Amino acid sequence: MLTIKDKTELQRFIKKLRKRSTSEPEIEENVKKILNEVKKNGDKALIKYTKLFDKHSLPLKIEPDEIKKKAKEVSKQVIDALRFASERIRKFHKHQLEKSWQYKEEDITLGQLIRPIERVGAYVPGGKASYPSTVLMNIIPAQVAGVREIAVCVPTPHGQLNPTVCAALHLLGIKEVYRIGGAQAIGAMAYGTQTVKKVDKIVGPGNIYVATAKKLVFGEVDIDMIAGPSEILIIADSSAIPAFVAADMLSQAEHDEMACSVLVTNSEKLAEAVKKEISVQLKSLPKASIAKKSLKNFGAIIVVKSLSEACDVTNEIAPEHLEVMTENPEKLLPLLKNAGAIFLGQWTPEPIGDYVAGPNHTLPTSGTARFFSPLGVYDFLKRSSLIKVGKIGFQKLASYVDVLASLEGLQAHANTVRVRKTT
Amino acid sequence: MLTIKDKTELQRFIKKLRKRSTSEPEIEENVKKILNEVKKNGDKALIKYTKLFDKHSLPLKIEPDEIKKKAKEVSKQVIDALRFASERIRKFHKHQLEKSWQYKEEDITLGQLIRPIERVGAYVPGGKASYPSTVLMNIIPAQVAGVREIAVCVPTPHGQLNPTVCAALHLLGIKEVYRIGGAQAIGAMAYGTQTVKKVDKIVGPGNIYVATAKKLVFGEVDIDMIAGPSEILIIADSSAIPAFVAADMLSQAEHDEMACSVLVTNSEKLAEAVKKEISVQLKSLPKASIAKKSLKNFGAIIVVKSLSEACDVTNEIAPEHLEVMTENPEKLLPLLKNAGAIFLGQWTPEPIGDYVAGPNHTLPTSGTARFFSPLGVYDFLKRSSLIKVGKIGFQKLASYVDVLASLEGLQAHANTVRVRKTT
Repeated sequence: MLTIKDKTELQRFIKKLRKRSTSEPEIEENVKKILNEVKKNGDKALIKYTKLFDKHSLPLKIEPDEIKKKAKEVSKQVIDALRFASERIRKFHKHQLEKSWQYKEEDITLGQLIRPIERVGAYVPGGKASYPSTVLMNIIPAQVAGVREIAVCVPTPHGQLNPTVCAALHLLGIKEVYRIGGAQAIGAMAYGTQTVKKVDKIVGPGNIYVATAKKLVFGEVDIDMIAGPSEILIIADSSAIPAFVAADMLSQAEHDEMACSVLVTNSEKLAEAVKKEISVQLKSLPKASIAKKSLKNFGAIIVVKSLSEACDVTNEIAPEHLEVMTENPEKLLPLLKNAGAIFLGQWTPEPIGDYVAGPNHTLPTSGTARFFSPLGVYDFLKRSSLIKVGKIGFQKLASYVDVLASLEGLQAHANTVRVRKTT
Repeated sequence: MLTIKDKTELQRFIKKLRKRSTSEPEIEENVKKILNEVKKNGDKALIKYTKLFDKHSLPLKIEPDEIKKKAKEVSKQVIDALRFASERIRKFHKHQLEKSWQYKEEDITLGQLIRPIERVGAYVPGGKASYPSTVLMNIIPAQVAGVREIAVCVPTPHGQLNPTVCAALHLLGIKEVYRIGGAQAIGAMAYGTQTVKKVDKIVGPGNIYVATAKKLVFGEVDIDMIAGPSEILIIADSSAIPAFVAADMLSQAEHDEMACSVLVTNSEKLAEAVKKEISVQLKSLPKASIAKKSLKNFGAIIVVKSLSEACDVTNEIAPEHLEVMTENPEKLLPLLKNAGAIFLGQWTPEPIGDYVAGPNHTLPTSGTARFFSPLGVYDFLKRSSLIKVGKIGFQKLASYVDVLASLEGLQAHANTVRVRKTT
């Protein structure tokens, strides 16, 4: 793992981080081909690619009964945990609900109608990265927003349904589920096929094929965000407990070899202690080899002079997850501008946010926290402006419309007020 | 202009409308080339393309003094109208401001920090479509959100600054302006060059090159939306005044040959009367030839049996602008789900919304009102989740984290709570 003490090295490291999310032209070409085929041939293309990639030819639609049956394989302990998590997630997301509003001024009414998107498609990864927590985090905000139709696509390699994913879907009352994965699932939801009705927005994480497909269909439908490899950045001072810092860094590192774990500290002593702890804890990790590679490629300890400098570095990296383990973590909040989620204090390890705290675990990666937000209820709402002007209000506004429209050379625009003025 | 009375014809028409926004592979290749060159060569590429497309080699940066001087060429009447408009726009958009929030439950604090994006780039089209209203509509919401740095790119063909655009920029106090246009301007703002500092988000309309470039840099930076040709759909019953309906349809049709004007009515009599009025009003329009072509290609009168059917058709088309000129327009609001902006009653012609009503005139086109919203203050805000758990709160959550992390095979995630439990 890199130890960074100067700015040139820091810039080189940030550049390397950003490059992780660069798309590959070859993958884009493959994905384009699949998308075009789905657009053109519908179900036929879905069946072809499902056979090719997932090695089965089961019906595309998974019946609610199959979901329910498979969900029963899951232990009560897990069901309880999923229920506990879903209730907390629902409670948090209700705070994000927004209401339509309007105001009046004399004869003019202005406002904004805020309403749910009609139909949403959620992608749930299958195979080795099949997570029930993803089901909860992607679907609950849509339900809170009031989305009427939610369709789910999940790949089922060799036709195998994942029981815990089924348990999560069943818990949320989801009835429309398809065993379709990869770019072809994104194409099905974006364009519609004989079996899958076109959606308005696609959400959910996936591998590079899914991410590329989402980017390519953006505009045809809306998408949540383009998610890259996971990241954690921990700001810690000498008060932090090295074993906690190490454990939290490793929890990101185990995700995949492209994941990134960074400690930013003003304490050389802590830096050393965390390094040692990481070596110790690595020994007992089942995914040690992934974590080691991740730390080697994208792990770093950045030693800074002050906590305010730590905040500057953090804002530049704009991490997905940010933990603050300092004596007074709240004090740094006003300085921390770019981060997907902020975890304060030593008793808030990041995985608490992954599962049960309540806020969403779908967060902007690769520095996009500069402009993207966590997935939320607002992602499932859309707005329409509302304008109502009466005859008196019209008199107040008309001459200005005439001046500006004429100025812009749009005579037919000006005519809309002139024709009414003569009435 | 088409008169549509059956569903097959309607579907064909909607399909034709949607196709207007399809991107062309050839343009995409050209734009990619320009973007890559800007990424690689910075200012050098900007200078090259400015010389090629805009035929000048003036410095890239426009000094505030130049803006101020040019703004003085504009009449007091126009300045007054711009000021009147900007005040109304600012007032409306202040209603969209959102505040950070948090709530506590025992030992757990959860919340969301809502803060402005740091640096935004606004594209202002030059040449024949150079509109001061665009300056107001794109920049005021960013200012209301509290964005600290706003950079503007505007092409200046043959080096000519547009006085009214300068007046609008000066009125808003914008100091950072570049004479750069097209795909190269989008590249400059997305990647940064020696002269132009990289931004976090790009907003503003433009031609097909600008729109394609925005789509391609999405992810590297955020963008507002991918805007297509303008659209109006008017729902009207027998109470509507044909001259008003015709004038409002023509105001969209004059925009460009790809613009779309649609009347949906349950009155055959109105349909006939509007057709006649359009022919009459067309005669005195300076942009009659554009309007004629637009109406021929994408104009339609759709005759339906009832106003509720009119709403269904509207929701499927999801128009950018929707006027409702019926006896009781409010009555239809609950049925109208997809539209960028809704104009109620006969005294609210759409151009009032283009200039002075207050709501934004940057609106979702080509059916994207199904999932996109008008440009607003929310486009310039980003959110970070906030989680703080104390030792007692930790005890409440830890075991569930352990269960779910173990279930997902993420042992290092489980370790973050185990290592703390043993403390």
